Amino acid sequence: MTTWYEDINDGDSMELGQYCFTQEEIIKYNKEYDNQYFHTDPELAKYSHFGGIIASGWHTACVGHRLMVDEIKKREEAMVAEGIVPGVSGPSPGIKKMTFLQAVRPNDCISYKLTVVSKRPSASLPGWGLLFSTIVATNQKGEKVFQSDVASFSKMRDFKPNMKQRLGMWAMKIPLLKNLIKR
Amino acid sequence: MTTWYEDINDGDSMELGQYCFTQEEIIKYNKEYDNQYFHTDPELAKYSHFGGIIASGWHTACVGHRLMVDEIKKREEAMVAEGIVPGVSGPSPGIKKMTFLQAVRPNDCISYKLTVVSKRPSASLPGWGLLFSTIVATNQKGEKVFQSDVASFSKMRDFKPNMKQRLGMWAMKIPLLKNLIKR
Repeated sequence: MTTWYEDINDGDSMELGQYCFTQEEIIKYNKEYDNQYFHTDPELAKYSHFGGIIASGWHTACVGHRLMVDEIKKREEAMVAEGIVPGVSGPSPGIKKMTFLQAVRPNDCISYKLTVVSKRPSASLPGWGLLFSTIVATNQKGEKVFQSDVASFSKMRDFKPNMKQRLGMWAMKIPLLKNLIKR
Repeated sequence: MTTWYEDINDGDSMELGQYCFTQEEIIKYNKEYDNQYFHTDPELAKYSHFGGIIASGWHTACVGHRLMVDEIKKREEAMVAEGIVPGVSGPSPGIKKMTFLQAVRPNDCISYKLTVVSKRPSASLPGWGLLFSTIVATNQKGEKVFQSDVASFSKMRDFKPNMKQRLGMWAMKIPLLKNLIKR
């Protein structure tokens, strides 16, 4: 999110945009990352469970992540251009769940939307909070094809460390990767 | 797995191989799927939390999936060459959890291992079982960098449908995508 931790509310959402999967790109991705015949061979795929070539679930997930990164960057640039300081997103410690609900086929156009479900201050990283969000992907027929439940860090704007925290932060030599990604 | 559902036991494991991440490939992947400066710009990345360029967690996950697909294919081919009929793996309904534990940096060599944690017959798809496995990725220093908890379908070798199931299967016109990926 481009908002500071304090200003984010449960239910806040962000449209991440739409992406149309071509057969050519599905094959290219899968030859590199998911080389199974129902992902790479349109003829053989006719005889698979799916009755035709489909995108890898990983591809669907990665495209959603890419759209999210691009959308956040676009919004940040627009805010900076207006003289507003955007909130700071941290890295993701992980994905809680990821479900492949429907096959994504060539020429399917998939829309992604992120919704914040809950937030809490990080237990181990002073000045940061954790956001728990869902990313839902829907095809052009309105069918949900994919959902992921993701965790991500979000910086607090108004954080003032107390003496103990200041000592702790100094001792940890922040920015320190380990504690950050271990939460 | 290349084994039939009946022959798979909790704790069965499979080394999926090792992959060394080059800076060039990290940048190439991230320009396409995770275009953030700590993934794409070695100079700017020095000033990030990570102190240098790192692979996207998604890239680490996708490489592991690729190694798994390749390893299964290699083992299947070896079994067929020996006249053995390999077990049939179905698609994955999803990932239960995925955790990024340590940064993966250029020239890190990551080893992946799959271990079956538990299995049960599918509640909705007669003749198939569900496997619940972990994929753990470890760097050359022995540090765990990534773990995913994945679900996947595995076909039963000895499945004999009863009359009700035969009728159900006929009615569902198996192979049918919808129920399979909905579980």
